[in-house]
Amino acid sequence: MSLSVQPRLVTLEGGEGAGKSTVLAVLREALLAAGQEVVCTREPGGTPLAEQIRNLLLDTRHEPPAPETELLLMFAGRAQHVRELILPALRRGAWVISDRFTDASYAYQGAARGGDAGFIAGLEQRVVGIVPGLTLLLDVPVGIGLQRARGRGGVDRIEAESDDFFERVRAAYLARAAAEPSRFRVVDARQPAEVVAAEAVAHLRAHQETVR
Amino acid sequence: MSLSVQPRLVTLEGGEGAGKSTVLAVLREALLAAGQEVVCTREPGGTPLAEQIRNLLLDTRHEPPAPETELLLMFAGRAQHVRELILPALRRGAWVISDRFTDASYAYQGAARGGDAGFIAGLEQRVVGIVPGLTLLLDVPVGIGLQRARGRGGVDRIEAESDDFFERVRAAYLARAAAEPSRFRVVDARQPAEVVAAEAVAHLRAHQETVR
Repeated sequence: MSLSVQPRLVTLEGGEGAGKSTVLAVLREALLAAGQEVVCTREPGGTPLAEQIRNLLLDTRHEPPAPETELLLMFAGRAQHVRELILPALRRGAWVISDRFTDASYAYQGAARGGDAGFIAGLEQRVVGIVPGLTLLLDVPVGIGLQRARGRGGVDRIEAESDDFFERVRAAYLARAAAEPSRFRVVDARQPAEVVAAEAVAHLRAHQETVR
Repeated sequence: MSLSVQPRLVTLEGGEGAGKSTVLAVLREALLAAGQEVVCTREPGGTPLAEQIRNLLLDTRHEPPAPETELLLMFAGRAQHVRELILPALRRGAWVISDRFTDASYAYQGAARGGDAGFIAGLEQRVVGIVPGLTLLLDVPVGIGLQRARGRGGVDRIEAESDDFFERVRAAYLARAAAEPSRFRVVDARQPAEVVAAEAVAHLRAHQETVR
């Protein structure tokens, strides 16, 4: 199984408090206004079973997962999400916008948690098999992002990690964006929300032009 | 990470209704009587988080897992089980008896469900890293085992599979036992429970002799 680029799959990536939810809603509106079917989803999650896996990942009532457990749970949920929700939607011609996808595993379970990138790449090949046509990286300095995220209240297991952890996440995302400039667009998410949204929509429109 | 044989790890394998629980209790008694510390456990499961993963695997309230999802959930639970329960117990010199372990993934997610054995072997190397010193395969014809298992009442998602599925499980177990005769002992589980128990204890005692 090799990786196949799916032009109508658009993913949003970024650390905590980058403003992904707001951008997702704006992109959805832009596609609907253009007469397209749009499916909005998120990871971990996206199907009833994958949402249960998300709960296991973020919950703090049982013992924390070992790094290997976290990585395999992420890919278990992703395998389900791709087969049950993303591929069926793409096959009928819909656009799919996902709040996080495989890049997040390279950043969080890989760079930040110390997981081996070669093993992650093997899982991507074996159980994911698809790559987004466009990935918007909402980049914000860690201090600002965490202040926003923690201002929202309740903190889950991953949000409770150290600043160092999130610095590694941010650096990994920026490195991936630099390595794949044709897929990634980086948006400076320190800007006011309207500006971030406008830049994101402009990137989507430019990408849409290339999709037949 | 290469596979390391753990002499004090004993696993029980077999299809549905093979009588693993009864044998597990008898082996436990035999080790306790010999003055050993014994930890009894099971897969999927064995820690609070891994038991939650078990529930996701056997539950029928959400959509069924795709084969790849099932395989990764099994190894996610196993990664946790090995790190949180099995290795700490072995390190302090205890014996660990597990009702199912990695062989079950080769039989169920591999042979019966069509998963690639090479991919499973890669997961075993990367996230399990250990192999039992002794594996008792309780072998029973599929029809007899299912009759026993279904006589117990409530049937979970995997117990509800077809007879063909369980024929593939049985054949895979027997093939693994034939390929690794120094680790596996096959017990004919059609025999009366006392005879099965006595044979299992005899195999354990012979194995104990070799463990220092």
